[in-house]
Amino acid sequence: MPDERFTPRRNFAWLEDEDSNYERARVVVVPVPYDSTASGWVGSREGPWAIIEASGNMELYDIGINMEPYRLGIHTLPELAVHTGDAAAMIDRIESVVGEQIDAGKFVVTLGGEHTVAVGAARAYAKRFPGLSVLAFDANADFRDDYLDSPYNHACTLKRISEVAPVVQVGLRSAEREEHDEIRKRGLPFFQPAEYRALGPAGIADKLSDNVYITFDLDALDSSVMSAVGTPEPGGLHWDEVSELLATVAQAKRIVGFDVTELAPQLGPRAASQLAAKLTYRLIGLALRE
Amino acid sequence: MPDERFTPRRNFAWLEDEDSNYERARVVVVPVPYDSTASGWVGSREGPWAIIEASGNMELYDIGINMEPYRLGIHTLPELAVHTGDAAAMIDRIESVVGEQIDAGKFVVTLGGEHTVAVGAARAYAKRFPGLSVLAFDANADFRDDYLDSPYNHACTLKRISEVAPVVQVGLRSAEREEHDEIRKRGLPFFQPAEYRALGPAGIADKLSDNVYITFDLDALDSSVMSAVGTPEPGGLHWDEVSELLATVAQAKRIVGFDVTELAPQLGPRAASQLAAKLTYRLIGLALRE
Amino acid sequence: MPDERFTPRRNFAWLEDEDSNYERARVVVVPVPYDSTASGWVGSREGPWAIIEASGNMELYDIGINMEPYRLGIHTLPELAVHTGDAAAMIDRIESVVGEQIDAGKFVVTLGGEHTVAVGAARAYAKRFPGLSVLAFDANADFRDDYLDSPYNHACTLKRISEVAPVVQVGLRSAEREEHDEIRKRGLPFFQPAEYRALGPAGIADKLSDNVYITFDLDALDSSVMSAVGTPEPGGLHWDEVSELLATVAQAKRIVGFDVTELAPQLGPRAASQLAAKLTYRLIGLALRE
Amino acid sequence: MPDERFTPRRNFAWLEDEDSNYERARVVVVPVPYDSTASGWVGSREGPWAIIEASGNMELYDIGINMEPYRLGIHTLPELAVHTGDAAAMIDRIESVVGEQIDAGKFVVTLGGEHTVAVGAARAYAKRFPGLSVLAFDANADFRDDYLDSPYNHACTLKRISEVAPVVQVGLRSAEREEHDEIRKRGLPFFQPAEYRALGPAGIADKLSDNVYITFDLDALDSSVMSAVGTPEPGGLHWDEVSELLATVAQAKRIVGFDVTELAPQLGPRAASQLAAKLTYRLIGLALRE
Amino acid sequence: MPDERFTPRRNFAWLEDEDSNYERARVVVVPVPYDSTASGWVGSREGPWAIIEASGNMELYDIGINMEPYRLGIHTLPELAVHTGDAAAMIDRIESVVGEQIDAGKFVVTLGGEHTVAVGAARAYAKRFPGLSVLAFDANADFRDDYLDSPYNHACTLKRISEVAPVVQVGLRSAEREEHDEIRKRGLPFFQPAEYRALGPAGIADKLSDNVYITFDLDALDSSVMSAVGTPEPGGLHWDEVSELLATVAQAKRIVGFDVTELAPQLGPRAASQLAAKLTYRLIGLALRE
Amino acid sequence: MPDERFTPRRNFAWLEDEDSNYERARVVVVPVPYDSTASGWVGSREGPWAIIEASGNMELYDIGINMEPYRLGIHTLPELAVHTGDAAAMIDRIESVVGEQIDAGKFVVTLGGEHTVAVGAARAYAKRFPGLSVLAFDANADFRDDYLDSPYNHACTLKRISEVAPVVQVGLRSAEREEHDEIRKRGLPFFQPAEYRALGPAGIADKLSDNVYITFDLDALDSSVMSAVGTPEPGGLHWDEVSELLATVAQAKRIVGFDVTELAPQLGPRAASQLAAKLTYRLIGLALRE
Repeated sequence: MPDERFTPRRNFAWLEDEDSNYERARVVVVPVPYDSTASGWVGSREGPWAIIEASGNMELYDIGINMEPYRLGIHTLPELAVHTGDAAAMIDRIESVVGEQIDAGKFVVTLGGEHTVAVGAARAYAKRFPGLSVLAFDANADFRDDYLDSPYNHACTLKRISEVAPVVQVGLRSAEREEHDEIRKRGLPFFQPAEYRALGPAGIADKLSDNVYITFDLDALDSSVMSAVGTPEPGGLHWDEVSELLATVAQAKRIVGFDVTELAPQLGPRAASQLAAKLTYRLIGLALRE
Repeated sequence: MPDERFTPRRNFAWLEDEDSNYERARVVVVPVPYDSTASGWVGSREGPWAIIEASGNMELYDIGINMEPYRLGIHTLPELAVHTGDAAAMIDRIESVVGEQIDAGKFVVTLGGEHTVAVGAARAYAKRFPGLSVLAFDANADFRDDYLDSPYNHACTLKRISEVAPVVQVGLRSAEREEHDEIRKRGLPFFQPAEYRALGPAGIADKLSDNVYITFDLDALDSSVMSAVGTPEPGGLHWDEVSELLATVAQAKRIVGFDVTELAPQLGPRAASQLAAKLTYRLIGLALRE
Repeated sequence: MPDERFTPRRNFAWLEDEDSNYERARVVVVPVPYDSTASGWVGSREGPWAIIEASGNMELYDIGINMEPYRLGIHTLPELAVHTGDAAAMIDRIESVVGEQIDAGKFVVTLGGEHTVAVGAARAYAKRFPGLSVLAFDANADFRDDYLDSPYNHACTLKRISEVAPVVQVGLRSAEREEHDEIRKRGLPFFQPAEYRALGPAGIADKLSDNVYITFDLDALDSSVMSAVGTPEPGGLHWDEVSELLATVAQAKRIVGFDVTELAPQLGPRAASQLAAKLTYRLIGLALRE
Repeated sequence: MPDERFTPRRNFAWLEDEDSNYERARVVVVPVPYDSTASGWVGSREGPWAIIEASGNMELYDIGINMEPYRLGIHTLPELAVHTGDAAAMIDRIESVVGEQIDAGKFVVTLGGEHTVAVGAARAYAKRFPGLSVLAFDANADFRDDYLDSPYNHACTLKRISEVAPVVQVGLRSAEREEHDEIRKRGLPFFQPAEYRALGPAGIADKLSDNVYITFDLDALDSSVMSAVGTPEPGGLHWDEVSELLATVAQAKRIVGFDVTELAPQLGPRAASQLAAKLTYRLIGLALRE
Repeated sequence: MPDERFTPRRNFAWLEDEDSNYERARVVVVPVPYDSTASGWVGSREGPWAIIEASGNMELYDIGINMEPYRLGIHTLPELAVHTGDAAAMIDRIESVVGEQIDAGKFVVTLGGEHTVAVGAARAYAKRFPGLSVLAFDANADFRDDYLDSPYNHACTLKRISEVAPVVQVGLRSAEREEHDEIRKRGLPFFQPAEYRALGPAGIADKLSDNVYITFDLDALDSSVMSAVGTPEPGGLHWDEVSELLATVAQAKRIVGFDVTELAPQLGPRAASQLAAKLTYRLIGLALRE
Repeated sequence: MPDERFTPRRNFAWLEDEDSNYERARVVVVPVPYDSTASGWVGSREGPWAIIEASGNMELYDIGINMEPYRLGIHTLPELAVHTGDAAAMIDRIESVVGEQIDAGKFVVTLGGEHTVAVGAARAYAKRFPGLSVLAFDANADFRDDYLDSPYNHACTLKRISEVAPVVQVGLRSAEREEHDEIRKRGLPFFQPAEYRALGPAGIADKLSDNVYITFDLDALDSSVMSAVGTPEPGGLHWDEVSELLATVAQAKRIVGFDVTELAPQLGPRAASQLAAKLTYRLIGLALRE
């Protein structure tokens, strides 16, 4: 029984050992404090810990989905060590860690860091879930082949992921012309907010296969509610829209894992970290609801 | 006649003596810089003064309601001294100060500080207005019986208030399961934003008695426009929704007093303090409009 | 050919010399770091440079209008020197610089600084475009004759501009009674957000003459997405509304020049500067689209 | 007797009415929130109020001088209204207000705002105290004849003051060559920190006449302890040095009035405002100690 | 063997399990995020975690004392739960936790939170070490009997501690007259920085008994290097002075335990948290060096 | 002749073209916004531009050395593009750019960015100046062979530089034991502040060869005056000490080039950027004084 004179140790959701020990946990959170390829405003290395900090300021009961996701058991791994010499090696490290957890039967939540970290996580999932599709929330196309001398720059994230699984993107409102041309030429399902609103959440769900991995770059959200990202953009998705889309996908498909990335906490108010924590928690609940 | 080489002293709305002296004032503002029971991010003790500061940056004519509320006369009391040993004693102090002002025929505006300060103000009103009902804006249920070893912790505010007058709450999107279960079991009128939108402002007004006290925890607002609170939550009420609800209630009922609480100015941009000042000013106008 | 080991020098949009040299440029950006008459929260002198800084964090292709405005050529002048003794002299300086650029066949974008700088720019345009009308985005009426002992205080901006060209204003939600009375008495087309929504973008365009100068005080935007201004106001225009109105006017009329003012970057997150940069870039594209 | 349920109103040192009413007060504080001619980093308009705020966080007994200066009675005037059109008119306003207070027998403490405000205060004193000398603390020579088109720019402060009384300056470590040449050519007593250390406090006192006005630009202090100024400079004076010099001058001469200027609170930690408050309080005590 | 793909979990000094497990650890760190009685600027509740955060940015070898203190084994307990109703109950909780650790043979390091937390820790030590003396670093006398209605307000800390063990204080430069009078009347060894410099570190050590408990309120340090405290004061102790005094006391006496309190990280730069971490680490090394 | 209505474009020291064009310039400033290997607090990528920004707030006459360094002509190159895939490639890029400038007869000033950038600059100098020695200011030994999987991590900087030229270091107060052991075993001239004070500036100069390259990691300075670095350390060098040492070395030896690195402007007040600008400017003057 926990000693009531103490608060729990800081893990995701600040859970007592009973709800956060590895053996019992259905969910494993992998914090990845990596932002070495960031090209603009930096600081997403502080994102994972800011989410963990803010998660102690949430109610454990999520009234919006009428559920207490922590009862699934959520274990938080220590933060990944950063490989500063080589982005490819860092991605391999992420893939290996996430892969091991999937193999151990865990549902893996990867917390970035820059969006690049999603490449490692998505690879681990794609290898283990044939036919996997990826639902990407992102303001940017991230569809460059190479950027600032690296194929693993954050601006290439969705391009790299699309090499292992088909990607459906929502929230697009920034791209270079070449990216946009390629997306249109290939008819890729990349949706601007207005296009998403026209299509509706069920329309998105229809484009996904049975097993879905979600990669959530927080800049998909409108910059009013999410300013703490390296490339904040107005005209984005609102909280209620995101909540509804996630709920729809969760009901129609099986969400097998996800990541939340690009929180750079010093660039916005603490409310942004709080939102990221709540989004993470809700997604856990939605994905694993019976 | 004021000496034009000087600006007015800093009181709420930065009024000249002519419009702010106690005798003439219809309205009395009570600043309560108290946050000793805050369990998360602290700093609402700086809220009252931040509102007063920002109030000098407002126009005295409120174009949204076509009225100059300052003409009612608004007197700002000095800040309440904080009782650091015992939350119950602090609430008693608030009740005594607010009660004296009501007895002197004033309309009292209490500025927090944490939401707890509303317990003192609401008690003073409930004792003097039999049949009073309370309209609460809040993101959190605040319906715990006891929290962190105190029945006067800010997380118990609406529970405490409900012991002296029936409460209608709008903006709910965070609660613990036990609170939520009790609210549902007892059929209390606590509305999430989507539920409020379905019901409409008149529907809320219908649930209130003739004399209404309003307690406004600023976290009821969406975290995009109100990040400077201890528990910012996305998915909240927007400014126009709040304005409309307040106008509807003001027209249908008699607002006898109100508080605005939980502004922790360092947690967000100055725009948040500005909004809190404008909200306070508008509520004064709406409540006392002939 | 640019040396790829270097990034471009910092000008608006961080363009290589090829796209930013004066001769080729269709557009000239005039940064005016002036805020000496600011009466509330100060710091808009840092606005022009913050916009230039943030503009390097934009994609050069604007997916929202499917256009690469930088291909028009955008030259950024050095910042104007500030005249600290006398506001009138500063406005004359702005008028002379802007006028020279118009005479040289350039499309001029003035970056404030406080809204006052728009008076100089608008005068230069009004003298050269008979029948010019002005579309003003602003939360405040700015229609005082004189304020804090100066006719060139920022609170008099639209009054001063209206003396050289008729003004249509959108976004109004703050004024003193005298301003409001005069606006109503004279039947001036000053629209609050709700009024604008009722009228629609085409309704606004109808009130403008063929040649339109746009003066954009950023506080016209809702304070959720634009907190970095001296007088942030809730209940304002949203990004999509502004984008739509600008696109409508650009299509129906000829936009001959514009300014973007009042960004005080330290008062909000960097996301606000990013928005101001993107707005500026989009307006360039819309105004000069073939 | 004060009501113990309340804190005092915010005036300098947060004094009860008994110690701060005008009639009894030996000292009058004049807050001047003016920074319109600031050429670099702006924000000293917020200085006077930041000093007043921080002054509530001081002990009223100053252990360093074993004295309770508040017992002299300290009245704080409302803040001066800012004249935004013309720096000369603002200085006249300051001179008139300070002059009236001297004539009423008060010891006047002027709180800036930019250093320019000292010109008005020093003029008022020089007219009333023939043979007055001025002790200036400043990192900058401030000895330009004219700057950014104005003779009243903050960079001309000591030049303007030297036209009404001889100036001894301490803390110099930034100047343009022309200023420095003139200072040397005319043999003016302007001392760099190392020169001051060689000379010692008594050496400074010897250069002053019987009646001394002190103008204290906070950038005279080392930027480690005073970063909240528009032109912070390393290599400056330390607190103990300043305290010792002030004590020496206070004992050897009669300090008739003083100003403390250039605090721009947002540019540094609150500790800087706290220091400015404590400096102001100590100077009051030293100047008026029997 | 630790998995090199991960960093250690966040405990004090970010140690691997091998160096931080409870059994092996000679040292136990007790984080106490309590600041409910803070009377001025608040936020020291965030101090313990800020120290833990910053401690990961230190080298584990302390070159200044040529020692690797972590080899002693340092275990960090979870944070104490806060008692928001009653300060006395919180102090009891601290005393019970610290006492248990002493009884288990551990060297206890208490991290505040406000200085009040030291009362609990000092009581636990005084009961177990008869003849204990206390070395207090503090800018403030903290010698009030009662403050803001509580005997456990932070302003009463040294008074409360002096009731269980004699106190020697260094760094004094702020007090109310009554405190100062009592200190002088009773001839208590409370030293201002200049007095300490005259006496020297050995002179302080001479005044202590064999077993010494150290309570370190960070405001004893000069505000240039430690601005992140609620009552920053210029004219304080410098790092080298503190280091020398601690080394002298460690050599001459036995340091049995200590606390480091009053870090309010948001009030200063991260460098302040870094200093607090380094101070804590060095004190561990000095106290337990063979 | 410059148009006085404009300020100069932003280059180092904000010089008019006459004083900053490449041909005439004796000095070339190379800004390198690189921080990809930062292991702790990030943001030094913003350092070069923050120095350039702050340099406009300096007087061009440096009274401390009685010289106007800008008269030498100072040209600022555009910022280097960042190579995000591979630290070694980035260092090569720096070496090639710096080398070209040396070959063109320029005195090169490299502005970091993290300390790693010094490796490229030092290599370029070492190849061209046989017998070169390096004077390093640094709080950290930076003498690791490899760190976080890269030999070019910032923690290896002085190790890498020592492979091309002998290094004398001043300011050391943080190291891991292995580094310290190697430094002592090999008898390297790495001096802690106290050791430096014992030795004096001439003692340092004696250890240097005729041609000296200076690498200045700003954390060598005391954290009171330089908090805006990734690893701020108390107990460091003060401004006057650094100024004196630089002046001594400049007189006794020939300084052939230098870098200033590790300014992370968001981690401290603007005063830190101002200091870095002034240091850079003074070093230019000292190095090239006839």
